[in-house]
Amino acid sequence: MSKLTLGAILYEGFELLDMFGPLEMFTALPEERLEVLMIAENKGVVKAGSMSGAPMPSVVADYDFDTAPQLDLILVPGGVGTIPELSNTKMLNFLSERSKSATITSSVCTGSAMLAKAGVLDGKKATSNKQVFNLAAGSSDKVEWIESARWVDDGDVVTSSGVSAGIDMSLAIIARLFDVDTAEAIANGAEYTWHKDPNVDPFVQYLNQVTLG
Amino acid sequence: MSKLTLGAILYEGFELLDMFGPLEMFTALPEERLEVLMIAENKGVVKAGSMSGAPMPSVVADYDFDTAPQLDLILVPGGVGTIPELSNTKMLNFLSERSKSATITSSVCTGSAMLAKAGVLDGKKATSNKQVFNLAAGSSDKVEWIESARWVDDGDVVTSSGVSAGIDMSLAIIARLFDVDTAEAIANGAEYTWHKDPNVDPFVQYLNQVTLG
Repeated sequence: MSKLTLGAILYEGFELLDMFGPLEMFTALPEERLEVLMIAENKGVVKAGSMSGAPMPSVVADYDFDTAPQLDLILVPGGVGTIPELSNTKMLNFLSERSKSATITSSVCTGSAMLAKAGVLDGKKATSNKQVFNLAAGSSDKVEWIESARWVDDGDVVTSSGVSAGIDMSLAIIARLFDVDTAEAIANGAEYTWHKDPNVDPFVQYLNQVTLG
Repeated sequence: MSKLTLGAILYEGFELLDMFGPLEMFTALPEERLEVLMIAENKGVVKAGSMSGAPMPSVVADYDFDTAPQLDLILVPGGVGTIPELSNTKMLNFLSERSKSATITSSVCTGSAMLAKAGVLDGKKATSNKQVFNLAAGSSDKVEWIESARWVDDGDVVTSSGVSAGIDMSLAIIARLFDVDTAEAIANGAEYTWHKDPNVDPFVQYLNQVTLG
């Protein structure tokens, strides 16, 4: 198998763990099998976001939308910054275009709202963050929204529920692309108890309990 | 209660999830109760590390060791970059000095090796990453090393096991400083199943199975 390139998509107000939970798992793969590229609309420093409003850490985007090479995997985190991105045509066009040539386009949390708005999820099954599920569900009626799921694998698009669900989804993607032993070894190395069943969702009980923006 | 300041300590080769798992939890607190500062020996861009050797994301340190204000909480991640830091006197002096005035100095994974080397854990109980436990245990014989623990709370120092154990430890610190309902609400918001018992360690079975550089 040739080396896979994963594009991790940054934007102002992305959620820290949506991004770095999955990247902890993907970067544990041998570098000759997968490389991670940090991509944003503009190269340089991108600040994370939090619903608490607290000052947040910044991360460096090494590629912009034009200079990013072909991507085999795309990872779109959620976060409070999702809302303005839903009307950012540069972001939506990038996701729409690049997902066409990707093997798997994935999202964590409210990232699925961006994929939905970009049309990437048209005719697909998908899920999203539970407490603000309507943000995603309201962004497109061309998607079959699944409320109760840790993650939903619909082939070339895989969407996860909120924040830490992205870790479980990422391990499932690694198991699909490589093998389950590799995914389990990575989970054990990170001392993470992998929730392997995508249909067990302990957090659906909090559906739409929070109103955003 | 006055606002707490948490210093998150960056160094070349820190482990992504050791840092951002805990920060996801701490930054969910209202900004008037806690602020997070990103600190490194030198201000500017600091690259994460991975045992896979893969190119890694970079994060921005907003403060250096001299300009960092007084810290109530200190968070030291582990990672492959721990090993050179064990002989970095600037890092060890910073940890030694700043921990004296901190309410809680905490570490994730091999971060406890740095705290031990800095003398911060002298006479204390502590734990570390399971697969490379000897890195910490070999760094000081003045520490009572606890092999089987998700995290160890010894008052003003709290150390966790590997990588994702830092999330469980952080929620326990939040429960101690604020209350358990606050910690549970943060875990639920992050759709994270909090492992609440510090004595249940599913990963001690992998003790010292990996040899580091």
